[in-house]
Amino acid sequence: MGTQPNHLNERGEVHMVEVGEKPATRRLGRAVGYLSARPDICQAVKNGQIPKGDVLAVSRVAGIMAAKKTSDIIPLCHPLPLTHIDVQIEIESEAFRVEAVVETTAPTGVEMEALTAVSASLLTLYDMLKGMDRTLEIGHIVLLEKAGGRSGHFLREGASHVDHSDSHQ
Amino acid sequence: MGTQPNHLNERGEVHMVEVGEKPATRRLGRAVGYLSARPDICQAVKNGQIPKGDVLAVSRVAGIMAAKKTSDIIPLCHPLPLTHIDVQIEIESEAFRVEAVVETTAPTGVEMEALTAVSASLLTLYDMLKGMDRTLEIGHIVLLEKAGGRSGHFLREGASHVDHSDSHQ
Amino acid sequence: MGTQPNHLNERGEVHMVEVGEKPATRRLGRAVGYLSARPDICQAVKNGQIPKGDVLAVSRVAGIMAAKKTSDIIPLCHPLPLTHIDVQIEIESEAFRVEAVVETTAPTGVEMEALTAVSASLLTLYDMLKGMDRTLEIGHIVLLEKAGGRSGHFLREGASHVDHSDSHQ
Amino acid sequence: MGTQPNHLNERGEVHMVEVGEKPATRRLGRAVGYLSARPDICQAVKNGQIPKGDVLAVSRVAGIMAAKKTSDIIPLCHPLPLTHIDVQIEIESEAFRVEAVVETTAPTGVEMEALTAVSASLLTLYDMLKGMDRTLEIGHIVLLEKAGGRSGHFLREGASHVDHSDSHQ
Amino acid sequence: MGTQPNHLNERGEVHMVEVGEKPATRRLGRAVGYLSARPDICQAVKNGQIPKGDVLAVSRVAGIMAAKKTSDIIPLCHPLPLTHIDVQIEIESEAFRVEAVVETTAPTGVEMEALTAVSASLLTLYDMLKGMDRTLEIGHIVLLEKAGGRSGHFLREGASHVDHSDSHQ
Amino acid sequence: MGTQPNHLNERGEVHMVEVGEKPATRRLGRAVGYLSARPDICQAVKNGQIPKGDVLAVSRVAGIMAAKKTSDIIPLCHPLPLTHIDVQIEIESEAFRVEAVVETTAPTGVEMEALTAVSASLLTLYDMLKGMDRTLEIGHIVLLEKAGGRSGHFLREGASHVDHSDSHQ
Repeated sequence: MGTQPNHLNERGEVHMVEVGEKPATRRLGRAVGYLSARPDICQAVKNGQIPKGDVLAVSRVAGIMAAKKTSDIIPLCHPLPLTHIDVQIEIESEAFRVEAVVETTAPTGVEMEALTAVSASLLTLYDMLKGMDRTLEIGHIVLLEKAGGRSGHFLREGASHVDHSDSHQ
Repeated sequence: MGTQPNHLNERGEVHMVEVGEKPATRRLGRAVGYLSARPDICQAVKNGQIPKGDVLAVSRVAGIMAAKKTSDIIPLCHPLPLTHIDVQIEIESEAFRVEAVVETTAPTGVEMEALTAVSASLLTLYDMLKGMDRTLEIGHIVLLEKAGGRSGHFLREGASHVDHSDSHQ
Repeated sequence: MGTQPNHLNERGEVHMVEVGEKPATRRLGRAVGYLSARPDICQAVKNGQIPKGDVLAVSRVAGIMAAKKTSDIIPLCHPLPLTHIDVQIEIESEAFRVEAVVETTAPTGVEMEALTAVSASLLTLYDMLKGMDRTLEIGHIVLLEKAGGRSGHFLREGASHVDHSDSHQ
Repeated sequence: MGTQPNHLNERGEVHMVEVGEKPATRRLGRAVGYLSARPDICQAVKNGQIPKGDVLAVSRVAGIMAAKKTSDIIPLCHPLPLTHIDVQIEIESEAFRVEAVVETTAPTGVEMEALTAVSASLLTLYDMLKGMDRTLEIGHIVLLEKAGGRSGHFLREGASHVDHSDSHQ
Repeated sequence: MGTQPNHLNERGEVHMVEVGEKPATRRLGRAVGYLSARPDICQAVKNGQIPKGDVLAVSRVAGIMAAKKTSDIIPLCHPLPLTHIDVQIEIESEAFRVEAVVETTAPTGVEMEALTAVSASLLTLYDMLKGMDRTLEIGHIVLLEKAGGRSGHFLREGASHVDHSDSHQ
Repeated sequence: MGTQPNHLNERGEVHMVEVGEKPATRRLGRAVGYLSARPDICQAVKNGQIPKGDVLAVSRVAGIMAAKKTSDIIPLCHPLPLTHIDVQIEIESEAFRVEAVVETTAPTGVEMEALTAVSASLLTLYDMLKGMDRTLEIGHIVLLEKAGGRSGHFLREGASHVDHSDSHQ
């Protein structure tokens, strides 16, 4: 861990950090976040009283497309050739849980891409449910896992390890 | 409050809701969210050990630019001619607090634009601080206020009313 | 009907035509197009052997989002505040039929937005089905209806009139 | 050929397919499509009564730029570092014929990029000619050729082989 | 003329200035700029030894499309519904002269849109000529005229007045 | 130096040049440009009478983000995985001087990316200062340095060589 943002150059000004000397390696980022909602809304979506097919599909697509726009949304992120994006939504009793996995072969990681996918997916769910529930809150967005690169494998305490090599098609 | 997402048409499929019959009126959306971080990081940014000028400015700009991209990030949002975007960041003892105000003159509201500005601003802060702090968490993103339109004025319980007519230049 | 493209100015060069003197009125564009595919593929999607929920939802979302990008894809199109976008997909015996309705209140029409929505929706279906069927062909993309503006109401010969005032939610 | 869209993961939900394990190889996609128009319009453009220079150039540029936006228009397409885009327009007696070649060095192909270039180029021609001809129809958009990758070389029946190694500058 | 950038709010931080209280009026911006090049290059393009049709058309289209992207390129610019964009290129003895006119009906002006169109058009010319001439220089980009809005009509000293009401089609 | 734009193919039409046969090597582009302004404005920003923190940060961010959009702004530029972007602004007595460095590992160079960063950064400064100074002029935008690729190292006469290997973090 550093003691200064590496997005600041020697003049204390932001730049997009040089990564050209680092080798392109396979990297994975996995993040999660929640949209807390009224239990009756969660239940109604879960059991299909509110038609959930399109709602969940649109939210997933929004996450996938936002991951590809990460370097356009977050000013100092590098444009990267993403090789895999998967967004999974689970309906819990009082929240929608969104988890995103992003992979690339590149000289820098895809932590921000996974977090951006989760954020956009949650905002899209919020947009579709906001006419029914004014208690909506987006939160608990954290990085679950990071693999590849010099800093080694990171697995957030309490996060389960997913064998991504099985989940590919 | 409805009992079905109005983003679903009569076939239960998503569409971008028709708003052409509604008059264009002035509308405001105000949202807030937090990036919780280690107290020493918050303190170091606050007192300038970590040069904060560019860090906060870049985060604000990211929020402003993302608000303008809302209809490109959230699939069913209408493209709107935004007339005002302001993003304010405050450093608390254990978190960065981001509040965004968005205004328009349009037939539909800017709730999602304010939430998108907050999300992008928080993600950008996360990006710049992630090399120093692995406990970062984005959360408590909620709508504080909504004005204009048929549904009347909404002020979240506990949210202070800001006189936006004074804050314009 | 003119005898010269109105996208050419008096020097014979392309420009984005001036529409500032025309009043903003409500306008509608409706277009259709087809992806012809092997009958067994059409059948398998229709009866659910190929899970169609996400496939159709993603295609609809792609059409909706592309309509909003029309002025970025087609160089001489005006940026317009779209008020409604709806994309409907029907599975026929040897083709997928995509119909899009776009509406706005603006000084110029949304014919190209409807055609762009149809094209993007068809390309997205193609993308998802191309691994199963090499006979795919996109075609018969035409304007069905155009309403609003000086040139009056246009209904393509043989096109059924849809009462869009009923289809809004 | 598969029996399921590979854009569906094991849960039957869309994802952006993992391609990180595949090597980056040189790949080519070539597609074609048509805008059928009234014979007198085709003739007038061909012989220069309608100034064709800018009309054809703008349509070509639209195709080139759209190819670069493919992963933003088609939700599940991978962002790829395109190395070559060429769009060629021929005026036939009753149609404009648009052919696009796209190349990359990447772990997945550029079929959709070539089809997207063709679609955008045709839509742009439509946009410029629509004020003169209400019979316009876009159609017969197919893949002509695909090279590189595990699935081997594909040449559509009846399509002539173009030696692209000669056509580069 | 103010004594502080109006892009700074009362906290000295950037925001997108509120314009919601201002009426939407017709506004025009006109800007010019130059790409200086070797005289023999200018001459070769002018007399057609270098095929100029596509070169000039592509540069014009780049300017038109960039004007529409202004609020995405310049962080504090408002998204505006542009009603007219025209880019004109003249080949002088030692330079390419690019002039752009942009119009809108909006509560704020299109000065930056005209300057952005000129800049993008010049960069595109530079891109196409850079393989032949290493002396290229972009410069003398200024606002020629601004009309509409509270600040009244501005005509740069020495700039000729163009009757834009005649140049529309 | 060639005698024809290499953006023209054998038919004299624009294309995006094939670079797939060239190896991906490290490349650097460095460009500079100026916004000339009234001396009192330059002085007021320099000594802090006009709060310069956000003004300069926003201009730098605009340059960084525009560099990443180069292939979307300039029609025939290749999309490239940029590995480093740095924008530096210096306030002189009668001008703001903007210098940008861009790096990549790719089969083609980043000259246009550096020039685009400079242009966007200057336009953004113009936007923030235009309410105070009507003499603003953007100019003297040139390439200072180009490294990597077959054409060898280029250093503009009079340009100082910067050791970029020291300026990275």
